[in-house]
Amino acid sequence: MTAEILCVGTELLMGQIENTNAQFLSRGLSALGVSLYHQTVVGDNASRLEDAYRLALGRADVVITTGGLGPTMDDITKSVAAKALGKELVLRPEAEKMVQDRFARLGLPMTKNNFRQAMFTKDTIILKNPNGTAPGAIVPRGDGKVIVHLPGPPVELRPMFDNYVAPYLKARSGLVLQSRYIRIFGMGESQVDELLSDLETGGNPTLSPYCSLGEVMLRATAQAETMEAAEALLHPLVEKVKRRLCQVIYMISPEDDGSLGKAAVKAMAEKGLTCTLAESLTGGMTSAALVGVPGASAVLKGSFVTYTEEAKHDMLGVSKELIEKHGVVSHDCARAMAKGAREKMHTHLAVSMTGVAGPGGGTAKTPVGTVFIGVSTKSGEESYELHLVGDRQRVRTLTVLHALNHLRLAAIDFHI
Amino acid sequence: MTAEILCVGTELLMGQIENTNAQFLSRGLSALGVSLYHQTVVGDNASRLEDAYRLALGRADVVITTGGLGPTMDDITKSVAAKALGKELVLRPEAEKMVQDRFARLGLPMTKNNFRQAMFTKDTIILKNPNGTAPGAIVPRGDGKVIVHLPGPPVELRPMFDNYVAPYLKARSGLVLQSRYIRIFGMGESQVDELLSDLETGGNPTLSPYCSLGEVMLRATAQAETMEAAEALLHPLVEKVKRRLCQVIYMISPEDDGSLGKAAVKAMAEKGLTCTLAESLTGGMTSAALVGVPGASAVLKGSFVTYTEEAKHDMLGVSKELIEKHGVVSHDCARAMAKGAREKMHTHLAVSMTGVAGPGGGTAKTPVGTVFIGVSTKSGEESYELHLVGDRQRVRTLTVLHALNHLRLAAIDFHI
Repeated sequence: MTAEILCVGTELLMGQIENTNAQFLSRGLSALGVSLYHQTVVGDNASRLEDAYRLALGRADVVITTGGLGPTMDDITKSVAAKALGKELVLRPEAEKMVQDRFARLGLPMTKNNFRQAMFTKDTIILKNPNGTAPGAIVPRGDGKVIVHLPGPPVELRPMFDNYVAPYLKARSGLVLQSRYIRIFGMGESQVDELLSDLETGGNPTLSPYCSLGEVMLRATAQAETMEAAEALLHPLVEKVKRRLCQVIYMISPEDDGSLGKAAVKAMAEKGLTCTLAESLTGGMTSAALVGVPGASAVLKGSFVTYTEEAKHDMLGVSKELIEKHGVVSHDCARAMAKGAREKMHTHLAVSMTGVAGPGGGTAKTPVGTVFIGVSTKSGEESYELHLVGDRQRVRTLTVLHALNHLRLAAIDFHI
Repeated sequence: MTAEILCVGTELLMGQIENTNAQFLSRGLSALGVSLYHQTVVGDNASRLEDAYRLALGRADVVITTGGLGPTMDDITKSVAAKALGKELVLRPEAEKMVQDRFARLGLPMTKNNFRQAMFTKDTIILKNPNGTAPGAIVPRGDGKVIVHLPGPPVELRPMFDNYVAPYLKARSGLVLQSRYIRIFGMGESQVDELLSDLETGGNPTLSPYCSLGEVMLRATAQAETMEAAEALLHPLVEKVKRRLCQVIYMISPEDDGSLGKAAVKAMAEKGLTCTLAESLTGGMTSAALVGVPGASAVLKGSFVTYTEEAKHDMLGVSKELIEKHGVVSHDCARAMAKGAREKMHTHLAVSMTGVAGPGGGTAKTPVGTVFIGVSTKSGEESYELHLVGDRQRVRTLTVLHALNHLRLAAIDFHI
């Protein structure tokens, strides 16, 4: 089965909003084993949109549109699709009720133009939108090809794709899909690729790398007629990846919902451990990353952002002599920060970060990108030296990942 | 002049990387007054790419490609373009030198396939790439239409567009552009739109809104034959916007580089003020936002992430009686947190945040989305109650913006 994505909206062509829907849908279709060869963005212009529909329907089985389902005259996605299919829009009572119910729930009066949102072709499958007023749609051409209309706001589009469109496409293909999301920290993209390139074939199961700063995520997906058969295809591939990458894998899960922060919270929660952080160059980013994880309040008591020398002394008790002798960007300062934080907050674990994010502040001894991470437990303090490359934001983001990983490892190694 | 964007890469169709280039280029072209009607993504497939070139050249004066300029057999963007134009690629000595110099600087040996990166048509204008090995290109068709090739990595594409392509397009149009970026906090998109809709015509000057969570940015752009003439067109529009929106505008600048954090740092730095933060539900996000601003180290001494009741007591000295009487999500607690933080860190200003980000933790008195912001100065404490809507991440992000705005306002109101 082949699909094509058609994003509709002049605001996308002006760059006024980021088109996160295209990546979300591409990833979702790829995970469903649907082939995607084209993504297109067109503005709210009827003749250009009609051309785009004809072109897409000539190339793909499923054309998925985003945006342009609202009540205004600019919202032409459905009416132009109907024209391209030689069909007519009519008021569909079930859709009218959905729109009316939504307005009633919001306590707002429903103006006349909102009825446009309930207009669909007679044979359209209407999709509920619990997060907005405009219902979505699956419009059949009559020869097996369909146009799928999704609303533009990601908060409305994502659940509608996950809840209705993905199951529809799965049912159409008659196949079951099983996936594993394998998350990696501590090995670069090119090295992962080198170790696994022979496994990254386009067959079944598939193995695809997804890279973000400092991390690599692998998605292994198998399709088969039953779940058991799909699992049987998937298992040997996942085992091969595990054997080749060993300890750099920090999480394997059937859904794409892992992160180093989650892995760290999980490792601590399993042992009932508490932690605190002492951040200098990251200025609160590590703490914010941890607080974003559900369940963080059970493990993180609080943390210290000690951006200045004075704050390291006043908040963590790092002695002025130590700072004078070793500098704030040093093994000694990182260890003293972690120790001070742990003692002040009475936690099992503390992790500290100090370094030079740049662009200024580098010296011959500690150039930009030099970072020390300190770890304190009841067994004492350890510290780690990193030399990171990139601009201020990149150095800080990578430091956060390393700190979360050290927190995770300290929890795993902790003997209660 | 009309342009079209053609992003080349199977990894985009798989959703493996986010296509931030499309938005960057759309915004850049819009700021240059160039009309853009289509954006397309195609994979590394020669016949589909050739079709895409023919279609784009039929519709636009300038076709801008991204990606596929590298040394591997997958990198077909240039060769297929040459074919679509009926031209041939030859080894261009000046490009060969650029690639060789890059390898020499990196201290790496240059393998044979890297010469592919120096192959261009005879009449191509070659664009330097200081951040990668693959040079970019402007390839003329001979009838005024051109194909522009840019590398895929944003860190290479962005400076190449800004330094070479934008000036080339400007020179081609013969017009000068002047812009103002007007940043707004405290008024929603729909209200801004309502107040300004008569000014948002497609003419010259243009006024376009760009929305992000909690903020609206307006770009006003005028084009004319001279800078003075462009400024003369722009000035009355900017004045009209200022009159209509008044105090919700927090920054107006000729470049798109403003943020509430920058405005807060600027307001403090102008008066030589220092600050500290006490964060509960935001867990360090406000501090991280402030530390991301150049010059923050001169104003932010450090901050406290007091995620638990215990931390509010231990780190900030908020009394257990106060917490028992009023709860941690209260005006009283916000004020006590701000006061405690300011006294511990000896700063001019302190801002605190406490609230219920959700999904759990809400009560009848303080439902999810209830947030209190405390401000402490030598004149005493003030506090503000917010009722924010959305998920955990949205509530936290909006709280950060409100806290930064209160910091900015406190600095503006501060009498030294």
